[in-house]
Amino acid sequence: MALIVQKFGGSSVSDAAAMKRVAGRIARTQRDGNDVVVVVSAMGDTTDELLDLAEEVNPNAPAREMDILLTAGERISMSLLAMAIEAEGIPARSYTGQQAGVLTDSKYGKASIVGVVPDRIRRTLEEGQVAIVAGFQGVNAEANDVTTLGRGGSDTTAVALAASLGADVCEIYTDVDGVYSADPRVVSKARRIPRLSTEETLELASHGAKILHLRAVEFARRYNVPLHVRSSFSELEGTWVVNPTEEDPMEEPIIAGVAHDRSQGKVTVVGVEDVPGSAALLFTTLAEAEANIDTIVQNVSTEATGKTDISFTLPNKDVPAAAAALENLRESLGFEEVQHNGNIGIVSLVGAGMRSNTGVSATLFKALADAGINIQMISTSEIRISVVVDAQEVDAAVRVIHSAFGLDSQDTEAVVYGGTGR
Amino acid sequence: MALIVQKFGGSSVSDAAAMKRVAGRIARTQRDGNDVVVVVSAMGDTTDELLDLAEEVNPNAPAREMDILLTAGERISMSLLAMAIEAEGIPARSYTGQQAGVLTDSKYGKASIVGVVPDRIRRTLEEGQVAIVAGFQGVNAEANDVTTLGRGGSDTTAVALAASLGADVCEIYTDVDGVYSADPRVVSKARRIPRLSTEETLELASHGAKILHLRAVEFARRYNVPLHVRSSFSELEGTWVVNPTEEDPMEEPIIAGVAHDRSQGKVTVVGVEDVPGSAALLFTTLAEAEANIDTIVQNVSTEATGKTDISFTLPNKDVPAAAAALENLRESLGFEEVQHNGNIGIVSLVGAGMRSNTGVSATLFKALADAGINIQMISTSEIRISVVVDAQEVDAAVRVIHSAFGLDSQDTEAVVYGGTGR
Repeated sequence: MALIVQKFGGSSVSDAAAMKRVAGRIARTQRDGNDVVVVVSAMGDTTDELLDLAEEVNPNAPAREMDILLTAGERISMSLLAMAIEAEGIPARSYTGQQAGVLTDSKYGKASIVGVVPDRIRRTLEEGQVAIVAGFQGVNAEANDVTTLGRGGSDTTAVALAASLGADVCEIYTDVDGVYSADPRVVSKARRIPRLSTEETLELASHGAKILHLRAVEFARRYNVPLHVRSSFSELEGTWVVNPTEEDPMEEPIIAGVAHDRSQGKVTVVGVEDVPGSAALLFTTLAEAEANIDTIVQNVSTEATGKTDISFTLPNKDVPAAAAALENLRESLGFEEVQHNGNIGIVSLVGAGMRSNTGVSATLFKALADAGINIQMISTSEIRISVVVDAQEVDAAVRVIHSAFGLDSQDTEAVVYGGTGR
Repeated sequence: MALIVQKFGGSSVSDAAAMKRVAGRIARTQRDGNDVVVVVSAMGDTTDELLDLAEEVNPNAPAREMDILLTAGERISMSLLAMAIEAEGIPARSYTGQQAGVLTDSKYGKASIVGVVPDRIRRTLEEGQVAIVAGFQGVNAEANDVTTLGRGGSDTTAVALAASLGADVCEIYTDVDGVYSADPRVVSKARRIPRLSTEETLELASHGAKILHLRAVEFARRYNVPLHVRSSFSELEGTWVVNPTEEDPMEEPIIAGVAHDRSQGKVTVVGVEDVPGSAALLFTTLAEAEANIDTIVQNVSTEATGKTDISFTLPNKDVPAAAAALENLRESLGFEEVQHNGNIGIVSLVGAGMRSNTGVSATLFKALADAGINIQMISTSEIRISVVVDAQEVDAAVRVIHSAFGLDSQDTEAVVYGGTGR
C-alpha cells in the first residue's frame, strides 16, 4: 500500500467523458489498496475563457480579483471529479487550496507556496476517501484571500502536497506518455526517456521543453519527491524524474535530450568599454525595464580596443523595451550600438553525463557545421550546452543534434563519447 | 449618504456588456455619496450549465460536492463585476460567502443562514471601496465547507447582509420594473404595485408570483429591512416592500394583486370516517412519502354518514407518490377512495385590506361565476383568498378577478368594497 498523489491537467478532464475516464483510473488506484490524493486543473479551455471575459470587462483587472476569477475553474473540475469518483463507488471529497492547507504569500497571480498544512487531507485518507485538491491555488495567511501560483501551478501544488504528505510518488498525468528526447513534432524519431534526474529535467524545462512546471521540479528536487510523468490515456510507464542518490547514481545514457525554445530574442550591445560597473549599469537598466534576461554572454575584450560585446537573450516580447532602454545608456556607457534580433531560436543539449564525458560539445558543433547551420551564441552549464541559431534553422539543428548523439529511436545503443575522441 | 445593498440576478449580469452596464450603475450609486454593498448571482445560464455537467458525471452527485460546484458561478460573476467597477474608476473588492461572514447550517443545497459577521464588508466600506458579495452561498462553521442556500438564495443573502449591516435599503434588481398586480403575460392590463407590505409579498410569493425568494421576504419582515424591487434596465422607481408601522399604517388599496400557480395538483380522500386521529394518520403517511402539502381543506362531516372528504394540494410531481401512499391506508382508515387531479391551477387574491373590508370573497366568487368558471376548492387566510380551478381556466380566472377588483391599469381609482355591498 502506497500513498500516491496524482495530478491531472486540463486536457485530461476536458469534458464529462474525460472526467469519467480519469475517475475510473483514480478508483482503480484506490481499489488496488493505495491512498490517493488527486490534484486537478481547470477543465480544458476554462481558464482561457475566463481570461477572455476579464479582458472584456477590464483589460487592467486587479490581480486579486483575477485570482478569484481564475480559481473558479478548479472549483468546477474538482467537484465534478469528486462526483465522478463517487459514481464509481469510491467516496471522494474535494478541497480548495485553502481547505487543503496550501498557504502562499500574497503575490496574486504568481504566488509562492510558503507551507502546506494538509491535516484535512490526512483525515480524508484515514477515512478511506479519495481527496481531490484544486491545483494552482492557495490562500494567503494575512488576508485569507485566494491566490494563484501562475499558469502550470497545478504541478507545483501536486509536488508540494506530495512532499508534505510524504507520498511515495507524485504522478503527473498529461496527454503524452512521458518526457521525450526531443519534441516529437520536430523529431519523428524522438524517444521516451525512461528516467531523468531532477537537474536534467530542470535544464530541459527551462530551455523550452514543455514537460513540467519548473517550480514543481525544484520542489521535487528539494524535498526528494519521485515524479512519474505519464499519459492519462494509457497504462504505460512514463518518465520517472528522481534525485540520483549515492546508492543509486543513475547509470543512464550520458545525454538526456534536446530542448528548443523559439520564444526568445537576442540583444547585443556592441563596443562596451571593459571597465568595472559597465555590466552592472547595463543590467540594472534592463531590470528596471522589466526585461526578463535569460542567458548572458560576454567575450573577453580585445587588448587593442579595450572594448567588448555583451549579448543576452530574453523573451521576444521584451526585446523592443529592452533595446529602447539601452539606447538611453549609449552616451553614459559609451558603447557603439545596440543590435537586436527576434528571429532566433535556442537549441539546448542536456545530460548529466556531460560532467564526466569529454567531446560532447565538439560532437555538437561538428553536427551543426556539417549541416551548414551557423552558431550565433553559445552558453553552457555543467550539464547543458545551448546554442543560438537562426529561427529558420531550429528544427534542422534539433534533428542533427538528436541524430549525432544517437538519440534516434531506431538506434537503441547509447553512443559513447570521450573514448571515441569525437 | 446612505448604506445601500444592491442585488443583481443572473439575467442582469448575463454577459460582459451587461456586467459593464451594472458596474456603471453601481459606480453612479457610490459617486452619489452612498456606501454600496453588491450581492450578485451567477451569470445567465451558468448554474444550469454546471447542473448539466454534474448530471453527466453523476446523476446522484453528493450534495457537498454539488454546492462546491455551483458556487463557482458566483465566484466568476463577483470577480468580473469587481473588475468592471474598477474599470469605472471605483475601487471594488469581491468576497465569497465565507469571506463576507455568511454562516449557515450544514444542509448542503438548502442551507439556512444562522448568522452574518460582516466585519470584512464593514472595513471595505470604511476604506471607500465597493464590496461585492457572492450570493446564494455561505460556509458551515463546523466543517468550513461551502454551502448553498438553494436557488434564489441570492435574495436572502442580500437581505441578510442588509439586516446585519443596518442598511437603509436593499435594492433587488430584476428584468422587470417591480411587482405587478398580476403576471403581465396573463393580464396585459396588470399594473406595477408601488408599495406592498411584507405579509402581502409573502402571500403573493408563496402562491405563485415569481418576485422574491420567500425566505428573503421573511428575513426582511423579521429584521425590518426595506426592500426595493426594481429594474436593472431603467432608473424608474419599482415596488417598495416594507413593514407597515403604527406611524405609517400604509393607506394603500385594499387589494394588492392576483397570483396564480400551475405547479400544484389536488388529491381528495373521499369518505374518511370523522373520528379523532384520521387526519393525523393521513398526513403522517404523506410526510413519510415526502409529499410537500400546501393547502388542506376539510368540510364538516354530514350527520347522516359521519364521514367527510379531505382535499389538499401539493406539487404536481409529488401527486403519484402521495396517492400511492394513501391507497395503502384505505383499509385501516376505512375511506372510500383517493381521487387525484394534476390538471388544476390555484388563483389567489391577496391584500392586507381584506381584513377590514367585507364583500371581497363575494365579489371574487361572483366574477368567476359570471365567467362560467367552476371553483373546485377554496381556502383563505386573513389577507388571501385562493381558489382551485381547472388548469385550462387559470388565465381567464386571473383576468376576471383582476378586472373585478379594479386592478386593470386604465382604472386608476381604487374600488371601495364593503360600502358598495358588492
